[in-house]
Amino acid sequence: MKKYIGILLVGFSSVLWSQKHPVDYVNPFIGTSNYGATHPGAMAPRGMVSVSPFNVAGNLNLLEKDSQWLSNPYVHENTFLTGFTHVNLSGVGCPDLGVIITMPTTGPIETNHLVYGSTYSGEQAKPGYYAVDLNKYSIKAEATASTRAGVSRYHFPAGTSNILLNLGLGLTNELGSMLRFVSSTEIEGMRTVGSFCYNSPEQAYPVYFVMRFSEPPHEFGAWKTPYTNNGVESQWMGYNGNTRLMKGYTKTVVGDSIGAYVSYQFKKPTVVEVKVGVSYVSIENARENLDREVGSLSFDQVYNTTRKTWNDKLSVVEVSGGKEEDFTVFYSALYHTQIHPNILNDINGEYPEIATGKIGKTTGTRYTTFSLWDTYRNYHQLMTLLYPREQLDMVRSMLAMYDENGWLPKWELNSTETFTMVGDPAAVVIADTYLRGLTDFDVQKAYEAMVKSATQLENNPLRPGLREYLEKGYLSVDGGVAGPVSTTQEYNMADYAIAQLAKVLGKKGDFKRFYTQSLSYKNLFDPKWKLLRPKHRDGSWFSPFDPYKGANFEKNVGYIEGNAWQYALMIPHDVNGLMQLMGGRSGFIKNLDYIFENNQFDMANEPDIAYPYLYNYVKGKEWKTQDRVDQLLANYFTNKPAGLPGNDDTGTMSAWAIYSMMGIYPIIPADPVYTITTPTFSKIKIHLDTTFYPSGELIIEASNSARDRFIQSLEIDGKLHKGYFLSHEALVRSKLLKFTLKEQQ
Amino acid sequence: MKKYIGILLVGFSSVLWSQKHPVDYVNPFIGTSNYGATHPGAMAPRGMVSVSPFNVAGNLNLLEKDSQWLSNPYVHENTFLTGFTHVNLSGVGCPDLGVIITMPTTGPIETNHLVYGSTYSGEQAKPGYYAVDLNKYSIKAEATASTRAGVSRYHFPAGTSNILLNLGLGLTNELGSMLRFVSSTEIEGMRTVGSFCYNSPEQAYPVYFVMRFSEPPHEFGAWKTPYTNNGVESQWMGYNGNTRLMKGYTKTVVGDSIGAYVSYQFKKPTVVEVKVGVSYVSIENARENLDREVGSLSFDQVYNTTRKTWNDKLSVVEVSGGKEEDFTVFYSALYHTQIHPNILNDINGEYPEIATGKIGKTTGTRYTTFSLWDTYRNYHQLMTLLYPREQLDMVRSMLAMYDENGWLPKWELNSTETFTMVGDPAAVVIADTYLRGLTDFDVQKAYEAMVKSATQLENNPLRPGLREYLEKGYLSVDGGVAGPVSTTQEYNMADYAIAQLAKVLGKKGDFKRFYTQSLSYKNLFDPKWKLLRPKHRDGSWFSPFDPYKGANFEKNVGYIEGNAWQYALMIPHDVNGLMQLMGGRSGFIKNLDYIFENNQFDMANEPDIAYPYLYNYVKGKEWKTQDRVDQLLANYFTNKPAGLPGNDDTGTMSAWAIYSMMGIYPIIPADPVYTITTPTFSKIKIHLDTTFYPSGELIIEASNSARDRFIQSLEIDGKLHKGYFLSHEALVRSKLLKFTLKEQQ
Repeated sequence: MKKYIGILLVGFSSVLWSQKHPVDYVNPFIGTSNYGATHPGAMAPRGMVSVSPFNVAGNLNLLEKDSQWLSNPYVHENTFLTGFTHVNLSGVGCPDLGVIITMPTTGPIETNHLVYGSTYSGEQAKPGYYAVDLNKYSIKAEATASTRAGVSRYHFPAGTSNILLNLGLGLTNELGSMLRFVSSTEIEGMRTVGSFCYNSPEQAYPVYFVMRFSEPPHEFGAWKTPYTNNGVESQWMGYNGNTRLMKGYTKTVVGDSIGAYVSYQFKKPTVVEVKVGVSYVSIENARENLDREVGSLSFDQVYNTTRKTWNDKLSVVEVSGGKEEDFTVFYSALYHTQIHPNILNDINGEYPEIATGKIGKTTGTRYTTFSLWDTYRNYHQLMTLLYPREQLDMVRSMLAMYDENGWLPKWELNSTETFTMVGDPAAVVIADTYLRGLTDFDVQKAYEAMVKSATQLENNPLRPGLREYLEKGYLSVDGGVAGPVSTTQEYNMADYAIAQLAKVLGKKGDFKRFYTQSLSYKNLFDPKWKLLRPKHRDGSWFSPFDPYKGANFEKNVGYIEGNAWQYALMIPHDVNGLMQLMGGRSGFIKNLDYIFENNQFDMANEPDIAYPYLYNYVKGKEWKTQDRVDQLLANYFTNKPAGLPGNDDTGTMSAWAIYSMMGIYPIIPADPVYTITTPTFSKIKIHLDTTFYPSGELIIEASNSARDRFIQSLEIDGKLHKGYFLSHEALVRSKLLKFTLKEQQ
Repeated sequence: MKKYIGILLVGFSSVLWSQKHPVDYVNPFIGTSNYGATHPGAMAPRGMVSVSPFNVAGNLNLLEKDSQWLSNPYVHENTFLTGFTHVNLSGVGCPDLGVIITMPTTGPIETNHLVYGSTYSGEQAKPGYYAVDLNKYSIKAEATASTRAGVSRYHFPAGTSNILLNLGLGLTNELGSMLRFVSSTEIEGMRTVGSFCYNSPEQAYPVYFVMRFSEPPHEFGAWKTPYTNNGVESQWMGYNGNTRLMKGYTKTVVGDSIGAYVSYQFKKPTVVEVKVGVSYVSIENARENLDREVGSLSFDQVYNTTRKTWNDKLSVVEVSGGKEEDFTVFYSALYHTQIHPNILNDINGEYPEIATGKIGKTTGTRYTTFSLWDTYRNYHQLMTLLYPREQLDMVRSMLAMYDENGWLPKWELNSTETFTMVGDPAAVVIADTYLRGLTDFDVQKAYEAMVKSATQLENNPLRPGLREYLEKGYLSVDGGVAGPVSTTQEYNMADYAIAQLAKVLGKKGDFKRFYTQSLSYKNLFDPKWKLLRPKHRDGSWFSPFDPYKGANFEKNVGYIEGNAWQYALMIPHDVNGLMQLMGGRSGFIKNLDYIFENNQFDMANEPDIAYPYLYNYVKGKEWKTQDRVDQLLANYFTNKPAGLPGNDDTGTMSAWAIYSMMGIYPIIPADPVYTITTPTFSKIKIHLDTTFYPSGELIIEASNSARDRFIQSLEIDGKLHKGYFLSHEALVRSKLLKFTLKEQQ
């Protein structure tokens, strides 16, 4: 970025022409309120490790992890901090991870987090860095991280100070840990996590760690909190239910609620660094990760490297000409797309395979945390455009999972299949990737895997109810499959993806078969309501039908996380067919307007997030897309902790914002086409990876002032572009998209 | 023993002249009722491992582990078996160990021991062997063991059968385990044990294991039983509090309540062998122990070796001429002296050091389970006589503990100091051993260690209240030390031992000082009561004084596990001094008779176990010793599960019986002298270890018929012996002790 330094600022503030770098615009607090479920912790791009403040335990907090369904280690409006977690999920809807919790304290050892917790102030968060002052102890705590290791720096006052490692506490509801002091300055151990979305507790799995302290402690020990014995024997157990401090203990400690501490007697204020390597394979690998990534590097050295990595990552898009706040929203969103999927393999390539119990080894990157029901809609398309190498490794990771357990993933987390949500989204992601030109993976195997889940009638974990779906063309309310309307739509989507891939692979019969299947949603279209409606197995409609029921995640008969309105238009691959059913353009627009005008649009969930772009399908109504997207960005994507509409959904919401701010949106999954809207910035420079996109650089320019919200025209490489759609191929071949804007429609 | 085969039986049944070997007389069920706290499990002499039936869980049992203070894995009158433990204590008074529990079952996997438990029949127990039929499953289960590994053999019927490994269940109240399937036929893991006597939970420690199955299972898995979540979140946890079966799980499992299973589909009845190696150091050592001791050996091969080892051990004494039942009582008692102290070191010499957390290495044997308050009185004297090499390694083990943590042991268990009971008994054992001629240890270090505990005024874990004891000559009821009278007596005993050792080491000043101290019990002698009585710090007597209070382990002010009567004569080193205080011979005998005649003698506890021998101190009254010992043997030491008076106290009760049946008793700890009584057998041949006792063989003969209960005369090597005392030196130099008996006194 150095080349831009010193050039005078003209007009708007600007990334390109300021000394501020993309990394400097990121506000990691965005999404930490309003259930965005992000956290402000320090981490490297797609890091296995993140060091996050943990402030969701204890009733002093507004949102408490045990008192409600809470899926994040940190909530911005909470006030009571009980430590720093080292593995975390970001932007998901279910609690898991949030473990390996460290906490600096002063005074006598106290192991109960409800007692040792502290209010705090002076929070700072930047990519790869977090800092906070713990009021109770006058300790400043800082955190940074490499990919597989966290580094913390605790600024202790003079006197007795401690670092606690609490393995009983966690966001996850799993319990079970092990630890051992290898020396007074090194602890090795593991923590069990799992039961994501309160599912599949039998798949609970270990996360291993090695933790090092820069200063030898004056004293160290472990603790163990037993459950209370209520039997006759309790009369002799003076220690019944009480935490035991095991001073100087160097044997292995295991149990549901255990911890460790190191204690110091400082004559003057002293800084201690805590380095934590993590692995999902073994303690040895956690140690190797720590040694090779951090070793003897200082906190500052680790942070500087991670900061640079972040900046390089974020600089793939350079924006200028716009509001400072929008730069922050844009780069924070881009930051949030670089958290999940995250790296699962250790630095030596090893990772736990899915389902086999074996340790696999990759020469590339094994990714994990595939929230595919969310991410198939726009996230992977964005990765394909901006980070094609990563997207290819994600596809390869998915195929490796197929090799391992015979199935593509659905909602994979750390090599467990959580079976969260519905549909068959992996097929969509893989087909989409291939069709956008990223073909360097075993497409025959991928196709075989997709077809398997689309056709295997028995013991098919990905497509429950498949027999009925194939026989009737829909899932009935009687078949026992949750959200039968939604799930039919999802299967249609996946079938469309398979059809599209079949076509390019020259499998004409398959193309026809799956394409036909992909339109079977029509069986659920009730002409009376002009909506998709739940149906019985015998073909009769489910009654009473209330298309409003199901909003705000309310449980209902036909739909998953939404109501009939929020699914009404979720037929991205056959908008024109749907339009016909709804009575043509006017009926379609009527429904679309009705949804927006009657509060039936939910920006916070995926089924309807493409709705604002559907106006582009009706000539003369495109301005409504521009208008609505602009309003949605302004209302829901802001530089505030509540600046995400809801769960970030592992970057899906952020990807929506990024695309929307760039003026393009991948409107049909598994169909490499974009639709367009008004860009937020006057200049957007996309550095394309020339291995995949030889043109190398794509510039999107717009003559926008703050008031120019509508598109007057679009020129691509000097040539007027007709219509509001643009193929991926055309986009990545282009050098310049030049929008001319206007203030009024 | 082959040489005896074929010789005709004449007169009494006889070990020497029958085909029955000593090992064949042992009944391991002796002591499994009446709180004897022994178990009938299979084990090698002083083995780290014993495979015992576990029938103390579940209210179907008369004596249930959680419903009372119960210190043994097996109770003879119980009926509901829930598995087979692999590490156990024998004859102790507090619950611990009783873990690594296997259980063969049939049918679907059931992990709740209260459900999978079974009644049983057809029990057999012999040294190194146990067998039982599990009624519920029609499974015969057999067990044998080498020193550090257990081998079980389960005879399964055709159909679905399983072997469970329940790491949640145990006699110990500790929880916390780890396990991992290394392959379908090998599990490695650990179990936390500790809190012996409900003390020192912070010293809880791991026992590691490696378990192998001879047949590859059809299916395997782990389980985990979580505690019930009572919070708001429980509504989403369908698995809340329920055991999870984790089929095919090969990752590490940790938690408070976990287990594993292997499952078979047998077409015909099939035998599966389960081999379990154990270590207190590491999983690797557990595996090495298993590999080197058992490896590919069959159940029968392991059993045959262990049986031979037992027979060699027991054959150190050959008895003949007596009742068959008495042979059983004698050899079972000798068997029970060969259980604890037991071997702690792995086959490679490694063992956990005490307190340091380090792994030590021995070229000899590191013993553990030193219940010294019990064993200083007669047990170690017996080991010195019969197994001098072992006794020396026990002393060396005690000195190694001093090297490791700076203190001799008090009640050491698996390298933890449990601080159970009172006094300073290690000094007595070590002095006694040296004075009996076993001098091959670092006596200067031993002396230094003894003096340290006898003189260090602050932070002295062995002698609480030492300052008061030294200043006042007694521990007062105001000093906060439990049982101040008893503890004063114990400190006196230890001081006497130090004095005796000081004398032979030429430390005249020390001798005088400690000998003087050893008589300070006189400060507590109340001439009014003619008993030792609790005293205040200011010298006034504690009132009201009830010399009966404290019987049957009732808590009382002055005494530990006894009342004033049971401690009244516990001054073994100064019987004549005590006699004077009591008004000479008549007062002494009066008290002694009173105790026996008024039910104040407790055969089940150590303080008064030498009382029956005290008649030998009064000329003309020796027949009362012979009479009482004979009656006590008949009443309390029998070939029945209830055939021990109470806790065997790691062999102390058994040692009492052995000595008593041989007609000699080590009446003064740390004074190498025996007193004599009527031998039970007409011939007792003791094979002395010629390294220490060159005479090699000592024969005790007695002209006893069943009715000859009294001693007329004793000839030693043809010379009439005067009096009823005999030095250890004289005894071991002798070839023949020839008793002439008579029917009436």
